[in-house]
Amino acid sequence: MTLRMYDLAGADPARRFSPYCWRTRMALAMKDLPVETIPWRFTEKQVLGDLGCDKVPVLVDGDSIVADSWAIAGYLEETYPDRPSLFGGAGGHALSRFVTAWTDAVLHAGLVRMVVADIAKVLAPEDADYFRQTREARFGMTLEAVQADREAKLEGFRQSLHPLRMVLRSQNFLGGDTPLYADAIVFGGFQWARCVSPFRLLASDDPLEAWRQRMLDLHGGIARAAVSFD
Amino acid sequence: MTLRMYDLAGADPARRFSPYCWRTRMALAMKDLPVETIPWRFTEKQVLGDLGCDKVPVLVDGDSIVADSWAIAGYLEETYPDRPSLFGGAGGHALSRFVTAWTDAVLHAGLVRMVVADIAKVLAPEDADYFRQTREARFGMTLEAVQADREAKLEGFRQSLHPLRMVLRSQNFLGGDTPLYADAIVFGGFQWARCVSPFRLLASDDPLEAWRQRMLDLHGGIARAAVSFD
Repeated sequence: MTLRMYDLAGADPARRFSPYCWRTRMALAMKDLPVETIPWRFTEKQVLGDLGCDKVPVLVDGDSIVADSWAIAGYLEETYPDRPSLFGGAGGHALSRFVTAWTDAVLHAGLVRMVVADIAKVLAPEDADYFRQTREARFGMTLEAVQADREAKLEGFRQSLHPLRMVLRSQNFLGGDTPLYADAIVFGGFQWARCVSPFRLLASDDPLEAWRQRMLDLHGGIARAAVSFD
Repeated sequence: MTLRMYDLAGADPARRFSPYCWRTRMALAMKDLPVETIPWRFTEKQVLGDLGCDKVPVLVDGDSIVADSWAIAGYLEETYPDRPSLFGGAGGHALSRFVTAWTDAVLHAGLVRMVVADIAKVLAPEDADYFRQTREARFGMTLEAVQADREAKLEGFRQSLHPLRMVLRSQNFLGGDTPLYADAIVFGGFQWARCVSPFRLLASDDPLEAWRQRMLDLHGGIARAAVSFD
């Protein structure tokens, strides 16, 4: 039976931009598991509530319902052990947590300040209202104020990615010669930005940009084919 | 035959403070491999030159001479596969590179600005001169100027450790229930600071401090027993 996944969507139901949903999309592709994605919008709380969940991604695999991208990755690794590994062993599984924490605390925290007002523009009206209200409360200012002067913030943002750059200078993927789920974790952030904003985050000669292009090519180019701004 | 390791030492030959040497000390302990450490000082270039190396740690294992903590860890994993794994598989090996890059670019870069003038104080006079000259050239200012206002820098430094804290809130070690070499990589930085400076880097209620205490207890407390300031 085909797996199904609830996937955050914009006004255009084909625009899928959640970094966490992209982690799961890439994980499913790494496992070569076909998935039917179901567009879900911020204000459709009841749809997830009926599944006992409160945020996407949600994976439905027969009788199993799994929410949260980290839990889904663990579920896929355990349930489909004969397919390519997401973690490359127990050590890789444990250290992927650190990659997750760094991505959430550094990459996403920097990134959101450069694209958050652009996100509101790709949402359906009622979702945009919800998004603006909740995020402006969180930041204590308008989305436009958060995103202001992003050109000036760009250099600091790029510098904050230096640990990633150090690794990707000497190997093709965080996982080494081939990608692991850790690559999907980080890539989700860049794909998020790409799907909501025309703002260019990486210099063309940055080793991170070369890695991002490799990620866009993976699995028949599923990430490249997404509705996006580049 | 017992392994031997060249290990950076201060004026007191028992003071061993290199973060990279501590990575290797902990890796050897994880593998349960006894080692005879040989104190080495910054100005003893010829001693390493005779081995074909230019920096510590250097591991001598019979006819094998291996320099660089990352290379040594790989060597130990390959040469002693039946002993506890440093990486927990190929994925853990690959992702340990990211932990290394983060540690060098974030943890060490922040840390050195709080203890670098203290390092000079624990060195033998000729080493202190060498250290001051080379590091002041690198920083473009005196060691004392680099270290000035460290109390003011402390909050920012602690914030930069947040990805680590997020992981260690929910698991005992970066490696999960048990430590991996990734733990040794990060711990080396804290042990470096501890062995050269009385300056307190972590708040007592920080989950990182609890982890650091666990690391100090490992392998019969070899790190805790080091000549240090706490």
